[in-house]
Amino acid sequence: MRRAAKRAERIAFQGERGAFSEEAARKLLGREITLLPCARFEDVFRRLKEGRATGAVVPIENTLAGSVHENYDHLQRFDLPIVAETSVRIVHNLIVRKDVKFSAIRRVYSHPVALNQCLDFFSENPHIERIPFYDTAGSVKMITEEGFTDAAAIASRVAAELYDARILKKSIEDDRQNFTRFFLLRRPKDSRRLPRNAAAGALWKTSLVFTTRNVPGALFRALAAFALRDVSLAKIESRPLRGRPWEYLFYLDFLGRIDSPEVRNALDHLAELADYLRILGCYPQGA
Amino acid sequence: MRRAAKRAERIAFQGERGAFSEEAARKLLGREITLLPCARFEDVFRRLKEGRATGAVVPIENTLAGSVHENYDHLQRFDLPIVAETSVRIVHNLIVRKDVKFSAIRRVYSHPVALNQCLDFFSENPHIERIPFYDTAGSVKMITEEGFTDAAAIASRVAAELYDARILKKSIEDDRQNFTRFFLLRRPKDSRRLPRNAAAGALWKTSLVFTTRNVPGALFRALAAFALRDVSLAKIESRPLRGRPWEYLFYLDFLGRIDSPEVRNALDHLAELADYLRILGCYPQGA
Repeated sequence: MRRAAKRAERIAFQGERGAFSEEAARKLLGREITLLPCARFEDVFRRLKEGRATGAVVPIENTLAGSVHENYDHLQRFDLPIVAETSVRIVHNLIVRKDVKFSAIRRVYSHPVALNQCLDFFSENPHIERIPFYDTAGSVKMITEEGFTDAAAIASRVAAELYDARILKKSIEDDRQNFTRFFLLRRPKDSRRLPRNAAAGALWKTSLVFTTRNVPGALFRALAAFALRDVSLAKIESRPLRGRPWEYLFYLDFLGRIDSPEVRNALDHLAELADYLRILGCYPQGA
Repeated sequence: MRRAAKRAERIAFQGERGAFSEEAARKLLGREITLLPCARFEDVFRRLKEGRATGAVVPIENTLAGSVHENYDHLQRFDLPIVAETSVRIVHNLIVRKDVKFSAIRRVYSHPVALNQCLDFFSENPHIERIPFYDTAGSVKMITEEGFTDAAAIASRVAAELYDARILKKSIEDDRQNFTRFFLLRRPKDSRRLPRNAAAGALWKTSLVFTTRNVPGALFRALAAFALRDVSLAKIESRPLRGRPWEYLFYLDFLGRIDSPEVRNALDHLAELADYLRILGCYPQGA
């Protein structure tokens, strides 16, 4: 009875099927989920907010490209708590139709960002032309559907599987230190459901956003709230507030559960000093 | 004699002619400069390092997309001090050949990132197809050279001027809070040349990178070096060091000249606490 009542997961994400967000969603929730691709990040948040999805997976930072400020903005606007995090290594693979050999390739399609992250490959193979395409996963779909015998795509392993294509060369990206961190979001009423990766004894993280008044040492005093209680920070980033010179928004992640006494005290202390403070979520530290 | 001896500026940047980096270079150095487009950020740094350019202009952060970590990495690897900064508002314009009317447009070419930042325009004009192209400025060059009468491009004002094209609609981007901050770099021996925008009485900024040991409160203690001397911070960002869990690299900008007594003391104090500390440059605060 209990089993039948288990609601199927419908997970919203930005991009085409086979995108890296899909890989993150599967890492967080397994394979038995329904994927809801959306055109814009805002659509992803709206879809969850309106109950047309049971969860949403969004990228929040990349080791090479930095924080996705747009999603921090949406996290503040929509009341959708973070309930889990995970990191996905961005691996670019050279993908072809099943019968195509490397020597036949004359053109490679992919998103320009992916093409630009594989410049060593193109330097080593100067006879192969780079052709920009709208989407990494979409380029795999296109070369297989069109039946191209002299073309390849650059995309994730998931995209190759999805479109029944073959990986000719794994991991052709220039820089292997290319990871994207993703958040799983729920509606507030569903946020007590524990994610799969919440092993017993896991460390917890809390994410928040705050602003301070423009006085020298304001951030120093704000961090005292954590340092004086031995709460360790995991991320800090300032973001200038446009139109309000010298005012900053800070993104902060720290290690700790929001219901522990020292974290409660630290947050009360921070609230005294901050003009604006918003908790974005408390979740088990992800792999 | 002195005038003739003035060396012509040859400025390296990443991208095609008409890129936003070119706009930043002109804002910093005026129109009388020779522009050296490069394929990769690394090429930009190398070109300056080897003396094949007199300066380099590189993006360091964007209000929507975050910090350009790759360029922070290059700033640490190459010894090329920051000597100036500026901010450029990223404005996307709808650009056509001189004789083309809006009603004739059926297709719009641009870099996918630019296309994705103009989604409201495409929602309002559903009959117009979005076609991804390698480069924003390059898409203007292409539609003018090919003589397309039913196509437009999305790019900067500079690109429109450069390829003798016409701006049909200004500023069609969804979010106007889209700014990119650029640095001007020199070789160490040239770094005493004052940039144009160094007005008398300008505020100065210093940028540095440091790491701290993994102890709770390490960042708090590091910031004390500045807070105790009333030195104001302008940016702080942590970046996890891959392969070294719980160790972080911090990017920090503060207001102050490196030769002032309080800044000297703050840096000596920080050096006591940091495992690694590197000054990236000291420069007049830019507009």
